[in-house]
Amino acid sequence: MVNTIKVSVVGGTGYTGIELLRLLSHHPYVEIDHITSRGDVGSLVADIYPSMRGIISNQFVDPDKADLKSSDVVFFATPNGIAMNYAKKLLSEGVRVIDLAADFRIKDVALWEKWYGMPHACKDLLGEAIYGLPEINRDQIKKARLVANPGCYPTAIQLGLLPLIKNNLIDKNTIIADAKSGISGAGKKLESSFLMAEASESFKAYGIEGHRHLPEIEETLSAYAAGERVKLTFVPHLLPMVRGIHATIYVDAKEEFDVSDLYESFYNKEPFVDIMPASTCPDTKSVRASNICRIAPYRERGTNRVIILSVIDNLMKGAAGQAVQNMNIMMGFEEVSGLVLGPITP
Amino acid sequence: MVNTIKVSVVGGTGYTGIELLRLLSHHPYVEIDHITSRGDVGSLVADIYPSMRGIISNQFVDPDKADLKSSDVVFFATPNGIAMNYAKKLLSEGVRVIDLAADFRIKDVALWEKWYGMPHACKDLLGEAIYGLPEINRDQIKKARLVANPGCYPTAIQLGLLPLIKNNLIDKNTIIADAKSGISGAGKKLESSFLMAEASESFKAYGIEGHRHLPEIEETLSAYAAGERVKLTFVPHLLPMVRGIHATIYVDAKEEFDVSDLYESFYNKEPFVDIMPASTCPDTKSVRASNICRIAPYRERGTNRVIILSVIDNLMKGAAGQAVQNMNIMMGFEEVSGLVLGPITP
Amino acid sequence: MVNTIKVSVVGGTGYTGIELLRLLSHHPYVEIDHITSRGDVGSLVADIYPSMRGIISNQFVDPDKADLKSSDVVFFATPNGIAMNYAKKLLSEGVRVIDLAADFRIKDVALWEKWYGMPHACKDLLGEAIYGLPEINRDQIKKARLVANPGCYPTAIQLGLLPLIKNNLIDKNTIIADAKSGISGAGKKLESSFLMAEASESFKAYGIEGHRHLPEIEETLSAYAAGERVKLTFVPHLLPMVRGIHATIYVDAKEEFDVSDLYESFYNKEPFVDIMPASTCPDTKSVRASNICRIAPYRERGTNRVIILSVIDNLMKGAAGQAVQNMNIMMGFEEVSGLVLGPITP
Amino acid sequence: MVNTIKVSVVGGTGYTGIELLRLLSHHPYVEIDHITSRGDVGSLVADIYPSMRGIISNQFVDPDKADLKSSDVVFFATPNGIAMNYAKKLLSEGVRVIDLAADFRIKDVALWEKWYGMPHACKDLLGEAIYGLPEINRDQIKKARLVANPGCYPTAIQLGLLPLIKNNLIDKNTIIADAKSGISGAGKKLESSFLMAEASESFKAYGIEGHRHLPEIEETLSAYAAGERVKLTFVPHLLPMVRGIHATIYVDAKEEFDVSDLYESFYNKEPFVDIMPASTCPDTKSVRASNICRIAPYRERGTNRVIILSVIDNLMKGAAGQAVQNMNIMMGFEEVSGLVLGPITP
Repeated sequence: MVNTIKVSVVGGTGYTGIELLRLLSHHPYVEIDHITSRGDVGSLVADIYPSMRGIISNQFVDPDKADLKSSDVVFFATPNGIAMNYAKKLLSEGVRVIDLAADFRIKDVALWEKWYGMPHACKDLLGEAIYGLPEINRDQIKKARLVANPGCYPTAIQLGLLPLIKNNLIDKNTIIADAKSGISGAGKKLESSFLMAEASESFKAYGIEGHRHLPEIEETLSAYAAGERVKLTFVPHLLPMVRGIHATIYVDAKEEFDVSDLYESFYNKEPFVDIMPASTCPDTKSVRASNICRIAPYRERGTNRVIILSVIDNLMKGAAGQAVQNMNIMMGFEEVSGLVLGPITP
Repeated sequence: MVNTIKVSVVGGTGYTGIELLRLLSHHPYVEIDHITSRGDVGSLVADIYPSMRGIISNQFVDPDKADLKSSDVVFFATPNGIAMNYAKKLLSEGVRVIDLAADFRIKDVALWEKWYGMPHACKDLLGEAIYGLPEINRDQIKKARLVANPGCYPTAIQLGLLPLIKNNLIDKNTIIADAKSGISGAGKKLESSFLMAEASESFKAYGIEGHRHLPEIEETLSAYAAGERVKLTFVPHLLPMVRGIHATIYVDAKEEFDVSDLYESFYNKEPFVDIMPASTCPDTKSVRASNICRIAPYRERGTNRVIILSVIDNLMKGAAGQAVQNMNIMMGFEEVSGLVLGPITP
Repeated sequence: MVNTIKVSVVGGTGYTGIELLRLLSHHPYVEIDHITSRGDVGSLVADIYPSMRGIISNQFVDPDKADLKSSDVVFFATPNGIAMNYAKKLLSEGVRVIDLAADFRIKDVALWEKWYGMPHACKDLLGEAIYGLPEINRDQIKKARLVANPGCYPTAIQLGLLPLIKNNLIDKNTIIADAKSGISGAGKKLESSFLMAEASESFKAYGIEGHRHLPEIEETLSAYAAGERVKLTFVPHLLPMVRGIHATIYVDAKEEFDVSDLYESFYNKEPFVDIMPASTCPDTKSVRASNICRIAPYRERGTNRVIILSVIDNLMKGAAGQAVQNMNIMMGFEEVSGLVLGPITP
Repeated sequence: MVNTIKVSVVGGTGYTGIELLRLLSHHPYVEIDHITSRGDVGSLVADIYPSMRGIISNQFVDPDKADLKSSDVVFFATPNGIAMNYAKKLLSEGVRVIDLAADFRIKDVALWEKWYGMPHACKDLLGEAIYGLPEINRDQIKKARLVANPGCYPTAIQLGLLPLIKNNLIDKNTIIADAKSGISGAGKKLESSFLMAEASESFKAYGIEGHRHLPEIEETLSAYAAGERVKLTFVPHLLPMVRGIHATIYVDAKEEFDVSDLYESFYNKEPFVDIMPASTCPDTKSVRASNICRIAPYRERGTNRVIILSVIDNLMKGAAGQAVQNMNIMMGFEEVSGLVLGPITP
């Protein structure tokens, strides 16, 4: 018999927060304790998100007044720069912390401060924080008190590249990641470019001159690059749809190898990574509302180029789903607990 | 401890079939036995629906060769006119049958044959078949061997009208149901009007001169109409989206009453019907991928008109979700088993 | 040889404004004079709307500093309550005014002030202002100095009802207009419900307890109702698409008549109203980006109910296209000038 | 005074055909002669495409019975392999031919036959046929009798690469074109993957192991590559929207140069190519329903990589619009005739 734990969500009004609440609300071993939102204190979660009527009865509470230490795990589904102000105290009170924002994703403080444009308020925990990509850090996550949940683009791209990087099969200066994300990746931000009238029936690149997920990807992958520094060209694009990330990755191989075998054997024990059959292309809908990452590796004929297609649901394996996966690992639950439902089709 | 049952799905390649498989695959008390498809015998379900990779390992089998009597329950997610050829034999073998098509929805054989354009092959089971709308027939469903799962439009419209009809509060000749459905309601039919290039960014009415769901609604509601015959004006429309039905219903009331109180008290014990707060409108996204029906009743100021808004996911409460709800009731499972996950937001 | 005129657009940053500029930029007899926008003074129109790069070279100017009297016609594509502050002066300077907002649409001042929540600043022009629906007011528009361009819902609904109302064929208390609009009808408003993540893949009603277009429709139609007062039940809905309005109208007829003949003969000289063949339903895409209104009238079998389907592009016949049509009439141009391009398909 | 010409369209029922008809119907110097469709002989164009009601009164005629030689120009908006059977006879009758399919795009017969899987029926005209990309072949198009209208992907990609190739600035073995197309690019094909229920809210790559546009791009660009052979990695993707192509192109530069200056000066006389300001990204909506190609060139910091973004409307500059542009050039009309209307926004 597994014991039930209590969890709180700080920042429950964004899309990541509500997705987390959807998952937690039916997780077999979890009881939801507090849900905070500075802007909506006193409102019912179900008033802001009618989809949660009858499912979540909590009111939003003030994060500074909530008794967060009554929880076993606290998730931060907040903007960048919030969790770093709470983590130390919570850890000292014996609470485990999973940050879905970027505060603890990058070990290099100077790099973090440059990209995020603020001083880091909790440098001394950067060493302890575990980057929550279970496919590389499962053992460390088991013992972690503080997990930095990866970004959505980094998850799709890193899972696509890891078999090549870890086996030292590619030229690390040739990596191009052409990535496309559904609009929920932008969060609930009130900008005219995210209005349906603007964003639907349209497609564009953005952030070409620098996206915050670039240093995260480069730093994480470099740790597995046999002493080399991984360098990426990363171009994100905005898709006219809500959920889903598709990364198309181009690299130059240093030698001959069978890409299918490589990926199959690398991921064959992973519950949430699926290698597609040869000559097929995964579509983002095939992972929608699930925690699955599907990958199709290709070897171009007549050249040394390798092409990797990697798809996830940005709110699931790219955010809330992976956070629940990390919680499961940290708490000793079965890793797939609360994450078993199949993708929504059609 | 609840015993697990074996269930089969006849006709697993349509959208209703795959939705049913998604639900059954994680149902706590169900083991999937056979999945049939005349056109795809030998293919893996996961080859036709990559979203099911790693979730359903079955191959499609021939419905005439499958040992369906090994199952406790057989679902028919087939076109109209199929289940009526199998039901009798299955019942005689002790198998319970839930038909998601229209074969057993209408008691009046002549009416059925007129609208469905074929002779009925199993008239003697029409009397026994139970119309599977739990909100009116729960007790009969409990004991049923054969359940006729309601149509999608009928579910949304009937749930919207029942409190008014059963309490004899409206003029039964004034009912107008202006209904809108997502395109998954058309199934996986290869018609140019269902191509994305045609259907997206567009909206239209169809079937104004007669839709098969009209007699189903009229017959079912008439049974509760105090001896009167219920007559509907029913105009269906096609929405540029995949899932969801929104019925906007207009009726003339015969007397004064509080619509909110009426609906609240009528449905307060129902696990899947949610009455919205006054002055709010449910959106279809708030029920997407869930089995919930949300209803907002309005009384127009200064007139005797009542306006009812009723939303469901056509593939869930309008098809596969309701079928699982019916199975739960028939088998004595908790009614919400396998149907607890919240709507996908956003 | 037709002389070219100069026109200005006050409020060029909204969707109605940019649509007007698209049409005016290639109108054969028009030169664009000033384009104003209080919030974007000094920016190029093409900076805010890159689609206008190479097409419109104007900068936005301050409406209070622009020399608007240098124009022959000034369009107001502003929020409600702006044009009423400018109209008098412009008229006195010999400038014709077309207001695409609601300031001059309703003759009853008290009614206007109740629905629009502000005092009317220019009551003495209400009598002179012509309601710019060419299908009823063409002769008056020809001589008008001030035209009130109709609302989008009112255009679709009035064109759908006029043949019935003017011929006194229906019970004026039975009218129900179930109307659906694309999201561009909401303008460029930064509200979370208009974000693509919220609005796409969803459908809902709104404004059931009162929409500002209701009194406009009732007042205008009542003028043709043989002394009776037209009363509407009007329920607007939001479609998950950008452009298009579909009105489904239900009325009770007082006598027998052939609906197709009625509509065909009523509109046979109209350049922008198309009556569909019997038993067909117009889709909104068939009028997208055009000034056409397509109407399909139905007579329900066995009842006295008439059902009318009416579709327009809300930004065209529902706003900017109709404004250009009005300008053409006012200035003696061919009525279809600048409005000849066919709907975008697909 | 420009004389009007007569034009016919062979194959008017596809999306390219109907777009061509939309443009031709309001072209100032064109009269539509015949519109053929083998499958729809006798139907009105407006019956198949209600958007053309009141705009095009033609019936579809049989291509083999139509008196095509009465036309000055005949467009083929047919599948591949049709125009090659008609071209010779038409040319001998003094008719100019513009083929929107692939029959005359590739000079290398063996290459063509390999990729298109059929013998070429008109090899002797391959030499005469002009590849109809005005930005490189304007002078030849002026004198051409037979124009091969470029493919949609090739148009976007070639316009993006030409300044670099013609100026010999890049390593021709490093080109990667990650291209994304709206679903209208697939035509009106009845395949389940193009159904709205499947394609909307999803994104995927396809044709990775070989797309027919690849040899077209490589052959055309190689002609400008200073004796070198241009080699491309080309990965097309399917966007959940109707119109628009976005090519994201990655190349390694051989030297330092200012990309903005290069592109500005290369295209500054082109009526339909727009170079975006530095640090901006064009969205496909900014060219929708127009003949414009917008390009944004980037130089990556700290590397020798150049990134080019190029967007077009696949049915316009990628097909019908470019065909009209070619006709204008061939017939001596102003090049922008009939192509002046701005993109549809929003």
